[in-house]
Amino acid sequence: MRKINIAIIGLGNIGSYLFKYLNENKRILTEKNNCIPIIKYVSAKNKKRKRNISIKKNQWLDNYLDSTKIKDIDLIVELIGGAEGPAKKLVFNALRNKKHVVTANKALIAKYGDQLTRIAEKNKVNLEFEASVCGGVPIIRSLKESLIANKILKIHGIFNGTSNYILSAMDKQGKNFDEVLLNAKKLGYAESNPTSDLNGDDVAAKLKILTSLCFNSFLNNNMHVEGIKDIEKTDIDNANKLGYKIKLLGFSELLNNKIYQRVHPTLIKKNTHVASIDGVLNAVIIDGKPVGQSTIQGEGAGPAPTTSALISDISSILRGNIKFPFSISSKERKKLKFENLSDRLFSAYLRFEVVDRPGVLSNITKIFSKNKVSIKRLVQNPDKNKKSSSIVIITHKSKDKYLNKTLRVVSKKNYIKRNPKLIRIDDN
Amino acid sequence: MRKINIAIIGLGNIGSYLFKYLNENKRILTEKNNCIPIIKYVSAKNKKRKRNISIKKNQWLDNYLDSTKIKDIDLIVELIGGAEGPAKKLVFNALRNKKHVVTANKALIAKYGDQLTRIAEKNKVNLEFEASVCGGVPIIRSLKESLIANKILKIHGIFNGTSNYILSAMDKQGKNFDEVLLNAKKLGYAESNPTSDLNGDDVAAKLKILTSLCFNSFLNNNMHVEGIKDIEKTDIDNANKLGYKIKLLGFSELLNNKIYQRVHPTLIKKNTHVASIDGVLNAVIIDGKPVGQSTIQGEGAGPAPTTSALISDISSILRGNIKFPFSISSKERKKLKFENLSDRLFSAYLRFEVVDRPGVLSNITKIFSKNKVSIKRLVQNPDKNKKSSSIVIITHKSKDKYLNKTLRVVSKKNYIKRNPKLIRIDDN
Repeated sequence: MRKINIAIIGLGNIGSYLFKYLNENKRILTEKNNCIPIIKYVSAKNKKRKRNISIKKNQWLDNYLDSTKIKDIDLIVELIGGAEGPAKKLVFNALRNKKHVVTANKALIAKYGDQLTRIAEKNKVNLEFEASVCGGVPIIRSLKESLIANKILKIHGIFNGTSNYILSAMDKQGKNFDEVLLNAKKLGYAESNPTSDLNGDDVAAKLKILTSLCFNSFLNNNMHVEGIKDIEKTDIDNANKLGYKIKLLGFSELLNNKIYQRVHPTLIKKNTHVASIDGVLNAVIIDGKPVGQSTIQGEGAGPAPTTSALISDISSILRGNIKFPFSISSKERKKLKFENLSDRLFSAYLRFEVVDRPGVLSNITKIFSKNKVSIKRLVQNPDKNKKSSSIVIITHKSKDKYLNKTLRVVSKKNYIKRNPKLIRIDDN
Repeated sequence: MRKINIAIIGLGNIGSYLFKYLNENKRILTEKNNCIPIIKYVSAKNKKRKRNISIKKNQWLDNYLDSTKIKDIDLIVELIGGAEGPAKKLVFNALRNKKHVVTANKALIAKYGDQLTRIAEKNKVNLEFEASVCGGVPIIRSLKESLIANKILKIHGIFNGTSNYILSAMDKQGKNFDEVLLNAKKLGYAESNPTSDLNGDDVAAKLKILTSLCFNSFLNNNMHVEGIKDIEKTDIDNANKLGYKIKLLGFSELLNNKIYQRVHPTLIKKNTHVASIDGVLNAVIIDGKPVGQSTIQGEGAGPAPTTSALISDISSILRGNIKFPFSISSKERKKLKFENLSDRLFSAYLRFEVVDRPGVLSNITKIFSKNKVSIKRLVQNPDKNKKSSSIVIITHKSKDKYLNKTLRVVSKKNYIKRNPKLIRIDDN
């Protein structure tokens, strides 16, 4: 029977889990793929770290880069992480030396995916990265294989478990952002440095990869990205009263022949499926022709779901299922123009904390009207103790640039007590 | 470039849609799979039927079985339907003559899948049937590829759009079964003969296929099957009052080392995801290790989603992605014992229409107690005009055989006015 020799580089939580799982399930994976997966080598930064896995002496590589040179390695699993440094060096060298690569590294693929793909295609090896986007949600294989027939019109969803946990905990537990974040760290739902989860960068990297797959385009940096750092308890309460939930969503969409990529907190109607997804779950919704709307949902992160994704990629290589990394040859991928949001229509939620004095409301509504933003609902809640009011406005659909200009103009008025808020509404 | 010659046999709604779609998207599919799909031949029962597709003269085969003999056909798409007759003959002959087969025929696969698989494996050709189970939900490829790493513990969900449409319309529109069914036929959501949709057989065939894939077992007929024919408006109303929705669900599960296959109307808590899925959508929920819980949801039937599934299978063959039809070699598939439900624990909803006279309630509760079924909730609603009462009982978990025995014993009492009802509750 055929066999594939594998090197696992990086033995953190995920690498160790994969090592163990692959060993324990070697027989069934061999049977299913008609090919034997052999962990020939492993390597990691710190040889002495306690890992609770039994590595044989002759399995350990002192220099991880040797894995790219050794003749009897067919497939390298990169689990180092980060877009630069050792991970980058490893994957570039591996592909150049005609090794298949499986990686969970979204930062690397989002940044160097196009270059890496060209090398993989030239050398006729696989570059697989299912584990880089929503571990337990097999969205990449779905786009590349299960839904291969489809012209994708839109992909959107919840791509970050940490943000989703925080927003749903603020909602359900009635706590503010900082309290919930602290708790999320304790529970292991947020990393000690959660910056990229909270500022939208994590979603942006995933979305960039998915957009390319959906629209057969090269990776494109033109994306609007906002995170959840500025969402306050009061916004969540207001949204609830108005029939919405606030979710951090990523969208890529083809609208009147224009492509938009965007990541931002979004008001979404309570009775939609996405609004009901709480905690660390991820969900991806694909609108395609001819399939209609398909939804895939599962755990987004953690060693177990990520291992499920890594092994699906490894198995695909075991079966000799050679595919273009981005679904289609680099020669056929397009340099599409991506629009920025300024001319796209949105309805929006705006909140202003204002000094409670005559004329303020009239001034605000005048600014809206002057900037072509028409108001659908307006709620003013006075806060007597502080001599201030909170004004919440839901707009009709307006161009994004008008919404932002309105926000800017109102912000500068001397009756504004704190930074105003603008959250786009999912208007479907 | 490599090419694959295809014969499409059966040109109803689905076959015609596929023919058109494959022609129109030949270029992009060629690029993605690095192999050209050519519709070399087609055949159908009635040559003269109006189809709105342009078949070339030399594409038509008068005898559909010739497709299995002609040398320059590599792949046959079977869209005739039915477990016996021409479809059976075509697929057996095709595989025997070393042609790849793609089929949407759940009845055929559920009945002859094991035999067909042995022939396909012997002749090293693909037998693919994604389109046979929930067209727009790529569940088969997910089990065979995306989730290949997983030990599946349970699969369940909504597998029949017609039943789901009827139950949700009864709920939302407040109409009774017959009215809604009539309307569903008008809207094209129910076939003119919807028997197999309504009696659970359609779900049973799909579930049989999925069970085999989940548990690496041969197809197994030991399955409890009930449809929705006997669900009344009043049951849906009662369920609502008690915090449940009624759905027709299919389940395959590994519970204390026992495997159960079952299809039946089920009370499921309102706030669950499955309860919220209305209309003709299908949803499949997989519990696996290490992935956790994954959900895939989409349109279940119709030419468009089915074509999406057929083309994913065709593309897999174009790429040379040879897989065992049932995920693992027939030599390794197991003859598992499947349990019937009698010793499985369920909580249940029971409804009795009784004559309104003293002693009835006491007699019923005595029978429950004698048969080891303990009552969790009981609601008696008198109907003064008819001198009768409706007694609704929610039980604690009891063995299925005790629940059924209780039902049987009470049914025979002379105070029972109409057939009583028992609906199992999804107790997770």
